[in-house]
Amino acid sequence: MKTYLECIPCFFKQALHAAKLAGSSPKTQKEILMRLSKEIPKFSLNCSPPEMGRTIYSLVNKYSPKKDPYAAEKKKSNELSLAIYPKLKKLVKSSEKPLLKAVELAIAGNIIDFGVKANLNIKRELLSIIKKHEAADKQQNKFFQFKAFEKKLKKCKDILYLGDNAGETVFDRILIEEILAKHKGKKIIYAVKDKPVLNDALFEDAEESGLCDLAEIVSSGSDAPGTVLKFCSKEFMKIYRSADMVISKGQGNYEALSNANREIFFLFIAKCPVVCKGETFSLKDMILKYHRRNDDTQYKR
Amino acid sequence: MKTYLECIPCFFKQALHAAKLAGSSPKTQKEILMRLSKEIPKFSLNCSPPEMGRTIYSLVNKYSPKKDPYAAEKKKSNELSLAIYPKLKKLVKSSEKPLLKAVELAIAGNIIDFGVKANLNIKRELLSIIKKHEAADKQQNKFFQFKAFEKKLKKCKDILYLGDNAGETVFDRILIEEILAKHKGKKIIYAVKDKPVLNDALFEDAEESGLCDLAEIVSSGSDAPGTVLKFCSKEFMKIYRSADMVISKGQGNYEALSNANREIFFLFIAKCPVVCKGETFSLKDMILKYHRRNDDTQYKR
Repeated sequence: MKTYLECIPCFFKQALHAAKLAGSSPKTQKEILMRLSKEIPKFSLNCSPPEMGRTIYSLVNKYSPKKDPYAAEKKKSNELSLAIYPKLKKLVKSSEKPLLKAVELAIAGNIIDFGVKANLNIKRELLSIIKKHEAADKQQNKFFQFKAFEKKLKKCKDILYLGDNAGETVFDRILIEEILAKHKGKKIIYAVKDKPVLNDALFEDAEESGLCDLAEIVSSGSDAPGTVLKFCSKEFMKIYRSADMVISKGQGNYEALSNANREIFFLFIAKCPVVCKGETFSLKDMILKYHRRNDDTQYKR
Repeated sequence: MKTYLECIPCFFKQALHAAKLAGSSPKTQKEILMRLSKEIPKFSLNCSPPEMGRTIYSLVNKYSPKKDPYAAEKKKSNELSLAIYPKLKKLVKSSEKPLLKAVELAIAGNIIDFGVKANLNIKRELLSIIKKHEAADKQQNKFFQFKAFEKKLKKCKDILYLGDNAGETVFDRILIEEILAKHKGKKIIYAVKDKPVLNDALFEDAEESGLCDLAEIVSSGSDAPGTVLKFCSKEFMKIYRSADMVISKGQGNYEALSNANREIFFLFIAKCPVVCKGETFSLKDMILKYHRRNDDTQYKR
C-alpha cells in the first residue's frame, strides 16, 4: 500500500514511542523527531509505510546506546509466549478443526506488536481477539479466507513463511507444527529480519521459539519493519519468487506487499485505521486475506 | 505550558484535520504537512503549543481558497448553540445555584472545539460532560475551584473574559448574564481573536451570540489559537494587565497562559492527554482552575 497523509502524524508517534522504549533521553527523543521532520519532505507517498518505518527505526537505533534497543522486550515476548505454548497446543489438539484453530492462534499472536501499542497485556488481548473473531465468524468475515488457504496448503510443495514479531514466532510455530502434522514432507522456509528493527523477530527469536527444527530460517536481508522487496537480499528474492506458497504475517508485511505481483496469504490483526479504511477491515479484525497476483505494472515488485 | 514532544505528532494531526476541514485538496494537504515538517526543527519547545498552532492555522489559511475556511462551521456552531439557548437558560433558572450552573454550562460549552475533535455531536457531548461532572463533583474535584471564583466575582470591579470558540460564545453569554444579574454594574470586556484561526470566535461570533449588549467586545490582536501574550496588541495588554479579574475560556488559552504572572480563572474541558498528564486532570474533566500569580521571572509575561 502507499503511504497516506494520515500516516505522517503516526510516523512521529511511532518514532517517539520507539525512542522512549529504547531508553533514549528526552534530548535524544527530540533529536530523533527533528531528524524525522527533515526526512518527511524527501519521502514519496508512493512508497509503503514500512519504508519510512525503516528510516524511523534506523534513527532510533542509531541514537540508542544499545545495539538492539528492544532485545529485552523481545526476550520477554518469547518467554511469555513459550509459557503459554502448552495451553495453546491443548487448544489446537482439543479443537474439531485443529488447522483452523492454529491459524486463528497464529493471527491472534500478531497482537504482540510494539509498533502499534505499548504496555500490552498479551493474555487479555489474545482472549479478546479470539472472542471477537468467534462472534464475527458467524457473520462470514469476507477477509478470513480459510478455505483458499487450506486448498493451497494441500497443493503446494514449499512454503515461504514471512515472520513478524518476536514472541509471535511461538504462535507461528504452532501453525507450522500443525501444517507439518497434516502435510508431511512440506518444506517450510521461515524468514526473519536481517538487523534489529523494533521488536521484529531475528534469527535468535526463531531459534528460541523452537522453529529451527521445523523450518529453515533465512534472513530477508532487510531491516525495514515489513518485507519491502527493494531492500531484500538477492538470496531471499530467489526464495520469494520461487516459493509455491507465501504466508505473510503481520500488518507491516501486508503494508509492504499488498500490491505484490505474486499470490500471498496475509495473516494479521488489523491495527491501523488507515489500513482498515483502505480495505474496509474493522479494527482488531482477524485477517486471512488471499491476495491474488497483481499484474498491474505500476506495482511490479 | 511548554510544548511536549507528544505535541509534535498532534501538530501534524491537527494540521491535516484543519486542512481537510478547510476543504483543501489532497495535494494542498500534503503541501501543508511538508511545510509544517520544515517548521518543526525551528520551533522551540519552550514556546506554548498555541504558538505552533498559529503557524499551523496560518499555513492552512494561506493555502485555503477561502478567507475564513471555518466560517460555515462557526456559523453552524452559533446557530446550534442559540437554538438550545432557551433550554440552557431554563436549566440555570431552575437551579438552586444558578451561578454554579451557569459556570458549568460555560465550561461544558467548551466541548465545541474543532481543534481537538471532528464530527462532534454537541448535544450528546454536553449531556455526557455534565453527567460526568455531577458524578465527579461528589468526589470533590480539586480542579473545580468554584468558591474562589465566586469570592473573586464579589470583590472585582471589571472582568476580562477571554473567549474561545464560536458557538461556545452563547454559553459564555449565559454565564455573563448570570454574573450581571447577581452583580449589577460590573464591567465585562470580552476578548475575541483578531483574525480567523480555526473555529475561534471573532467579533461577529460574539455579536451573533448576543454578547454585544452585555460586554465590550475587544480583539486580542492575536491570531494564535490561544492568548499568546507576545502576539497580542498593546491595547489588549493594557486591559489584560489592569483587569481585576480574568476569566479564560478553553484549553488553548490555558496552554498559552498557564504560567502567567497574574491571577486567572481558567474554565475549560480537559481534552488533551498531555495537558492532563502535566496537571493530573482527567480527560473530559470540567476544569475551573484558580491560577495564582506566577512570580517566577522565567515566565514573566
